[in-house]
Amino acid sequence: MSSVVYYGAVVNPTSLTSYSTLPRCLLSVDTAGTIEWIVETVESHELQDVLATKGLVDVHVVEIPDGMFIMPGFIDTHTHAPQVPNIGTGGQYELLGWLEHITFPMEAKFADSEFARKAYTSVVRRIIDSGTTTCCYYGTVHLEGTKILADIVHSFGQRAFVGKCNMNRESPPNYIEPSVAISVQKTQDLITYIRTLSKSSIPTQEPLVQPIITPRFAITCTDDLLEALGELAAAEPTVRIQTHIAENRSEIEFTRSLFPFAPHYAGVYDHFKLLRKNTILAHAVHMSNEELDVVKTRQSGISHCPTSNFNLNSGVAPVGEYLDRGIKVGLGTDVSGGFSISILNAIQNASIASKVCAFQHPGHTTASSPSTFANKPLTVATLLYLATMGGAAVCDLDNQIGSFARGKSFDALFINVSNAAGNPSLWGLINGAPLPPTTEERKVLLDGWLERFFFCGDDRNIDKVYIQGRLVGGRSFQAKN
Amino acid sequence: MSSVVYYGAVVNPTSLTSYSTLPRCLLSVDTAGTIEWIVETVESHELQDVLATKGLVDVHVVEIPDGMFIMPGFIDTHTHAPQVPNIGTGGQYELLGWLEHITFPMEAKFADSEFARKAYTSVVRRIIDSGTTTCCYYGTVHLEGTKILADIVHSFGQRAFVGKCNMNRESPPNYIEPSVAISVQKTQDLITYIRTLSKSSIPTQEPLVQPIITPRFAITCTDDLLEALGELAAAEPTVRIQTHIAENRSEIEFTRSLFPFAPHYAGVYDHFKLLRKNTILAHAVHMSNEELDVVKTRQSGISHCPTSNFNLNSGVAPVGEYLDRGIKVGLGTDVSGGFSISILNAIQNASIASKVCAFQHPGHTTASSPSTFANKPLTVATLLYLATMGGAAVCDLDNQIGSFARGKSFDALFINVSNAAGNPSLWGLINGAPLPPTTEERKVLLDGWLERFFFCGDDRNIDKVYIQGRLVGGRSFQAKN
Ligand SMILES: [Zn+2]
Ligand SMILES: [Zn+2]
Repeated sequence: MSSVVYYGAVVNPTSLTSYSTLPRCLLSVDTAGTIEWIVETVESHELQDVLATKGLVDVHVVEIPDGMFIMPGFIDTHTHAPQVPNIGTGGQYELLGWLEHITFPMEAKFADSEFARKAYTSVVRRIIDSGTTTCCYYGTVHLEGTKILADIVHSFGQRAFVGKCNMNRESPPNYIEPSVAISVQKTQDLITYIRTLSKSSIPTQEPLVQPIITPRFAITCTDDLLEALGELAAAEPTVRIQTHIAENRSEIEFTRSLFPFAPHYAGVYDHFKLLRKNTILAHAVHMSNEELDVVKTRQSGISHCPTSNFNLNSGVAPVGEYLDRGIKVGLGTDVSGGFSISILNAIQNASIASKVCAFQHPGHTTASSPSTFANKPLTVATLLYLATMGGAAVCDLDNQIGSFARGKSFDALFINVSNAAGNPSLWGLINGAPLPPTTEERKVLLDGWLERFFFCGDDRNIDKVYIQGRLVGGRSFQAKN
Repeated sequence: MSSVVYYGAVVNPTSLTSYSTLPRCLLSVDTAGTIEWIVETVESHELQDVLATKGLVDVHVVEIPDGMFIMPGFIDTHTHAPQVPNIGTGGQYELLGWLEHITFPMEAKFADSEFARKAYTSVVRRIIDSGTTTCCYYGTVHLEGTKILADIVHSFGQRAFVGKCNMNRESPPNYIEPSVAISVQKTQDLITYIRTLSKSSIPTQEPLVQPIITPRFAITCTDDLLEALGELAAAEPTVRIQTHIAENRSEIEFTRSLFPFAPHYAGVYDHFKLLRKNTILAHAVHMSNEELDVVKTRQSGISHCPTSNFNLNSGVAPVGEYLDRGIKVGLGTDVSGGFSISILNAIQNASIASKVCAFQHPGHTTASSPSTFANKPLTVATLLYLATMGGAAVCDLDNQIGSFARGKSFDALFINVSNAAGNPSLWGLINGAPLPPTTEERKVLLDGWLERFFFCGDDRNIDKVYIQGRLVGGRSFQAKN
């Protein structure tokens, strides 16, 4: 075993407003799947010299073919694995009706471990092949079923946070936990189980699969359950926390009525010490300034789920304002509130959501109220950032994933934009004509490929999926398996 | 040659608010591609008896396999064939900047007939395979290039209206017509050419490919050009007319300044006698009540292009209000203002657009202002209608296409929702388990298939595309060719 050296077109996010297009990038990944070094531009005639300076002679270089580029893997900061079987149905409901009629009945079926294994095997495979290298999963209320989800994620080699839902009220009789003690005990059991399952072989890096504390949302948790989960979280400072917040107006009103002591929705979670640097808050569609201040102070992150927010009539989250405030934002598919497992769809609808904000507030940005992001369309650079680096920050894992840098994990997608990808929506970008010779000309081309992939691409364009340096999915991987 | 009898699951739109799900439908198509008869429900044991009553003994029945259903083909009431090469790029622009920087430079390339032939061959093939059986195409300003587009559409067997853009001002120097006389002459030439190309073998039906008068939009046409086109239209009452209207605020202001005599944007077209029963108006995002009255009176139709309207920051067209007023509405992809050639994407974004209208006007519908559609989410039934029957009405061809009925053309899609379709977004609807036995149970299933196909499907689910009874596209057709 030795390092693998890749040479070819790379796209790498660098900030909320910029990314690098590197048509001739040289990148080395060590046997543990960590990026050893990157040389951003190496002209063909310089290749052997550069390799020699790295002490590499006669090394095999993996060349990225013309019409392909590498980018960091997508990070889905919010989805429900047991809801994938319901995808694309129930669009007539808003949140609370949709939970009652669509979500809870399906999730209850995951009490059957056989059903869970069959469903999750298919779900996780499809999510990996859609380019999601890191996924924040809600399982169901069932400990066994959620262990099975973790098993499958682990066996497929995906990076993930896997949580068992805590819910002890406002849930159907056949889909509820009978006591706080049992809910907390099962959560602890899942944490222990997942830690045994997945250990990192690299001391500086976190294991691929990790547990996450998952109070479903405030409505389904009594005060004493939230208090107990806050205590559990305090005892486990590195364990992430995920929940929902301020998705829909009826939900917000109901939450206020259940927690009269709290100043607002965010205040409920804050009271129980559930807002911290590694807390992921899904939706945040209707947030007051006070709530945003709390979220910012606690350094919690927001998972923006635009497809779901449109689909369940929730509204449009003004993520531009959140970015202006310096709040961490990533993207989430929120299946099956959202009707696609693909972060590409979240990218497209995040763009649309930002444009809806923009045309609802024409001329909002004036000299007296300068803003970088609020009420402006998100650019391709920002969309790329949200789908990768932003998600990494929301997962509190931005030191390890989200972009290509020395010491980070090689979580990467090989994107095929040539006709060979077989996706007819991505109209003949490469028509057999040779690429232009200069690196500068190819940069312009690569820019266009990225935007085209974001807006017209699908899983057929995702040729290979690497996680921690290991090939685990994608179209050509599936063709061989 | 004899009739073809199909037996299996059929979905058929019946009104703006309803559709039939027919799990065991029997449907006969004659050798000219016309539907001879339909029996909506035939249980398996009745099949031979029913055939016998039709005088058919030992006839070969084409059974639709489990996991597939037939529905009427999609009708795209607005797209730009020469813009497909730009699909998914330029999302940073609004309309007028996008025309200048993205659209006009690409369209100018279609002066080269070689380029046009190569591009259009690929474009039309992809549009058919995406399920569009009838398409309203804008070509470029070039007569030769647009004849080539008509040739290709004709040779592939698609039903279409093909127009050459009229534009004699506010266009780049290399992409403009030098005079009114030339613009009109070329339009007449195209009409003659297409009529020679495509004739109907059935006296009661219209030919597959038809010309359409296409003043690009008021801005690019001088008063005298619009006047001449109005006269041409008057001499050709059956020739359809297509143009753009009220897409974007800057465009509307500019139009008003160019036609100071007109009371409003619609008034410009009305003044020149371009609004009639077979006029297709794309966008109609920002329309006054007075304009809507004119459109309604003239019985013109609106092509709703939600993806484009979001993407170019144009706004949300309140199509629910238009439907309440009894104005005809169909769907359009408006490539490359829209970033998808598929009507499925238009369906998804029409749903989103209606939900944006709904949450912008919470509680709008009260006892004092009852409305059926305004500011409410469009249902699956309405979305189906808009994509088929609504489009047919907008094309003034609803007596011939848009649904399955005796005497109508068999323009149909065979939709595959089984895993064999290979579309991973459409999560395992059919998992090898047998379908339930009763027709009633299968109706419920079929309902779910339709919604799932609309929101999660793609071209991989479109197994066969029939136009006028002839197999012309789809996944299994391509696999054989
Ligand atoms: Zn959720
Ligand atoms: Zn258009």
